[in-house]
Amino acid sequence: MAHSGERFVIVSNRSPVSFSRSESGEREYSRGAGGLVTALNAVVRRSEGSVWVASATTEEDAKVSREPAPYEVEDLRVTLVEHAPEAYDLMYNRIANPLLWFVQHGLYDLPYSPLFGEDTRRAWEEGYLTVNRNFAEVAAHTAESERASVVLLHDYQLYMTPLFLRERLGRGVLISFFLHIPWPGPEEWRILPGYMRRGILESLLAADVLAFHTHRYARNFMDTVSEVLGAETSVGEGVVRYDGREVWVRAYPISIDPAEFEELSQSEAVLKEEEFVKGLPGRLLLRVDRMDLSKNIVRGFAAYGRMLELHPEMREQVTFLAQLQPSRQNVPEYAAYAEAIEQAVEEVNERHGTDSWHPVELSMQDNFPRSVAAYKNYDALLVNAVRDGMNLVAKEAAVANEKDGVLVLSETAGAHEELGEHALTVNPFDVDEQAEALYQALTMPAEERRQRAQALRKTVESNTIEDWVEAQLKDIVAYRDHR
Amino acid sequence: MAHSGERFVIVSNRSPVSFSRSESGEREYSRGAGGLVTALNAVVRRSEGSVWVASATTEEDAKVSREPAPYEVEDLRVTLVEHAPEAYDLMYNRIANPLLWFVQHGLYDLPYSPLFGEDTRRAWEEGYLTVNRNFAEVAAHTAESERASVVLLHDYQLYMTPLFLRERLGRGVLISFFLHIPWPGPEEWRILPGYMRRGILESLLAADVLAFHTHRYARNFMDTVSEVLGAETSVGEGVVRYDGREVWVRAYPISIDPAEFEELSQSEAVLKEEEFVKGLPGRLLLRVDRMDLSKNIVRGFAAYGRMLELHPEMREQVTFLAQLQPSRQNVPEYAAYAEAIEQAVEEVNERHGTDSWHPVELSMQDNFPRSVAAYKNYDALLVNAVRDGMNLVAKEAAVANEKDGVLVLSETAGAHEELGEHALTVNPFDVDEQAEALYQALTMPAEERRQRAQALRKTVESNTIEDWVEAQLKDIVAYRDHR
Repeated sequence: MAHSGERFVIVSNRSPVSFSRSESGEREYSRGAGGLVTALNAVVRRSEGSVWVASATTEEDAKVSREPAPYEVEDLRVTLVEHAPEAYDLMYNRIANPLLWFVQHGLYDLPYSPLFGEDTRRAWEEGYLTVNRNFAEVAAHTAESERASVVLLHDYQLYMTPLFLRERLGRGVLISFFLHIPWPGPEEWRILPGYMRRGILESLLAADVLAFHTHRYARNFMDTVSEVLGAETSVGEGVVRYDGREVWVRAYPISIDPAEFEELSQSEAVLKEEEFVKGLPGRLLLRVDRMDLSKNIVRGFAAYGRMLELHPEMREQVTFLAQLQPSRQNVPEYAAYAEAIEQAVEEVNERHGTDSWHPVELSMQDNFPRSVAAYKNYDALLVNAVRDGMNLVAKEAAVANEKDGVLVLSETAGAHEELGEHALTVNPFDVDEQAEALYQALTMPAEERRQRAQALRKTVESNTIEDWVEAQLKDIVAYRDHR
Repeated sequence: MAHSGERFVIVSNRSPVSFSRSESGEREYSRGAGGLVTALNAVVRRSEGSVWVASATTEEDAKVSREPAPYEVEDLRVTLVEHAPEAYDLMYNRIANPLLWFVQHGLYDLPYSPLFGEDTRRAWEEGYLTVNRNFAEVAAHTAESERASVVLLHDYQLYMTPLFLRERLGRGVLISFFLHIPWPGPEEWRILPGYMRRGILESLLAADVLAFHTHRYARNFMDTVSEVLGAETSVGEGVVRYDGREVWVRAYPISIDPAEFEELSQSEAVLKEEEFVKGLPGRLLLRVDRMDLSKNIVRGFAAYGRMLELHPEMREQVTFLAQLQPSRQNVPEYAAYAEAIEQAVEEVNERHGTDSWHPVELSMQDNFPRSVAAYKNYDALLVNAVRDGMNLVAKEAAVANEKDGVLVLSETAGAHEELGEHALTVNPFDVDEQAEALYQALTMPAEERRQRAQALRKTVESNTIEDWVEAQLKDIVAYRDHR
């Protein structure tokens, strides 16, 4: 793949590298993992001299942020941004993770929550806006000193950065904004206080290219700015006209690096975990999720229990391995959800289990090698999210799997736009439908399994993370030529 | 107003008249009240010879349904439809009221509910479809025997009737469908099982004119059929093209009969209740609502408590009269909501009350004369619904009020499209904003109160229930001419 020739500034809240001090007082670092970081690493590979701007979150990060920037680590050039701790806390723990995440995934129990008030406005103004101004300031400075041509902003912690960045940089530098979570329709955006709703939309329209994982989110975005701001939209062209400017709205479904998973599959750690995974009785039903309210974990166990009830011949013929990573356990809704998960598992195991067989094998620890070992060996994978920006588990697993495993996939996961036709589609709220799909997946004839699994793998391999980057760069160049 | 010359068959689940037996064995009847019945009475007045088809719900209703139809009562000609009790129960208590009502008002706590399954499908097929087929059969028969030119179908209990009716009647008779509750965007319709979602949309597109209370709902409808069915829509024209036909999508904001409220205001019963209302200490803050999860009653009390906290000088200067009609108390969510309401009232009264002053005067009984007495006398009216098809309380109260009362109105109530500019607009989830709006409403200078109150009344009077009927009839004629 050719080098793009562009110089980028990438901005994300999460840093690709985290610094600390060793006991002997030396600076150490660790590279981050996770979908976003992997994806943006692919952008960095495409553009020599790019700089990645991200939040300082450790004490040593803060020290790095005060040294001359960018700081070089292996192939990365990183500029860390130090935020006032209170402002960062308000942005992260009051606005981004509870409020925006809940609205965009449809998680509120609206008759009772949310309860917005002056504290919400304060968290917005003193937290979210402050952090975003900070990001914009550092990104603008970096773009200028590096003579970068493009600033790539990432995700819902940074909604207000396009506006502040545009004020600072004018029109010389191209701004793209990529959203990694779902964009719901206008009706759901009405939940937000007006100042926040309009603020976010006006800011996003200060960018040049707005990018989403699916065409549906892109369309929902256009419906939202049309309804709330009265912006002129052309869904067919993917264009919003507002304030005398043209903004392109595009879908680039994020992906993975298949080579990375092939390599990982053969690693010592994974091979070792395979012993455990292969020791589980019967066929392997798998789910791998962060313990988030959006992942629909409780209904998944209910569906499995229902399958065992409807098809008692499946007892002792299958084990449901649930690899769940704990998440946000200091948030009451999440702690309650973790309890509901444990209770749902207990119900299934007590009702259907025997001395020699646990219907559900629950792991509530972060164990990535075991997840990859399970990817290789599942007969059926359950991804039944209430709503999910993309869901990379479905893609990682499709590439790593060696058993012609069948994917049971929620129609409201972003991945459904690409993978749906080769998966068994389920409505996330229909427990009996999920039960039937699990049964069908676990009893499907070998030839159909093979065809579906191959089609899934091929689909993922035909749009890798490199293709994802390529498509965006192409449009950025086209946008500049067009303008 | 001229007579339309059309002969209508009106179909609604709820009947305008209910039959019973007196102790001496004679047949008696009572005329129904409520917004829908009032509205459709206005349609009947416009069209001599029209017949109203509705469900039989009492034993005596069932007897009437087996006699020669239509049955004449005063100015009404009514044909009652007897449904199998189990089918009716499934339609009403499994599909319409919990499921469709919850989806369309955004009331589900999605991480945990709904839980759809085979029982949902059975309730749909054996309940909802059966009742709708029954309605279609009786409506078709009535249209034929009465040589009616138009069938007017009403509300979310009847979504499948257009399809069955069209199959039965062909294209000779014009079918209009009016929805009285909110129509959310495509994202929220995805909650429904696919068979239900597609079924409803395909059926509605078998009608000729689809009518909603607001332009927003009409637009959401067009977005939904475009997304789910791939129908061709023109939002500007209000037209959907599907299956080789053209369907008109229109907004007719429902209204009231102002003369009826003027008359009612002077009735004995209301004058008597005024004594009670006028005896409440301080200025009068009012809400009148059915106890529904969509009405946002709990947050209303929280906002009021917050106002008393922020503006302690308002203590003993105001009484919040809450006239709440019990509703669906056999449904656990509604029983829990009633408890939450009582608890919220208790909190405010205990925190701020004195020996001589109850901050909140709570009435959980149906007492319409008292509501009208309160309409006449409020200084501020709170309508803060999470979501509301229209909200006729806002319109009734604006016409009856004699105190230049100020309206505090949720931006997600349908009435906001017409009344919003003369009201104080609030986000239903922002408690502090509602607290400030209540304060502002209760302390507004007389001249501004007068101007706003006059504008509200004028707005309501410029679109009465007669205008609502007129606008629909005009479009029905235009549709037929166009076709």
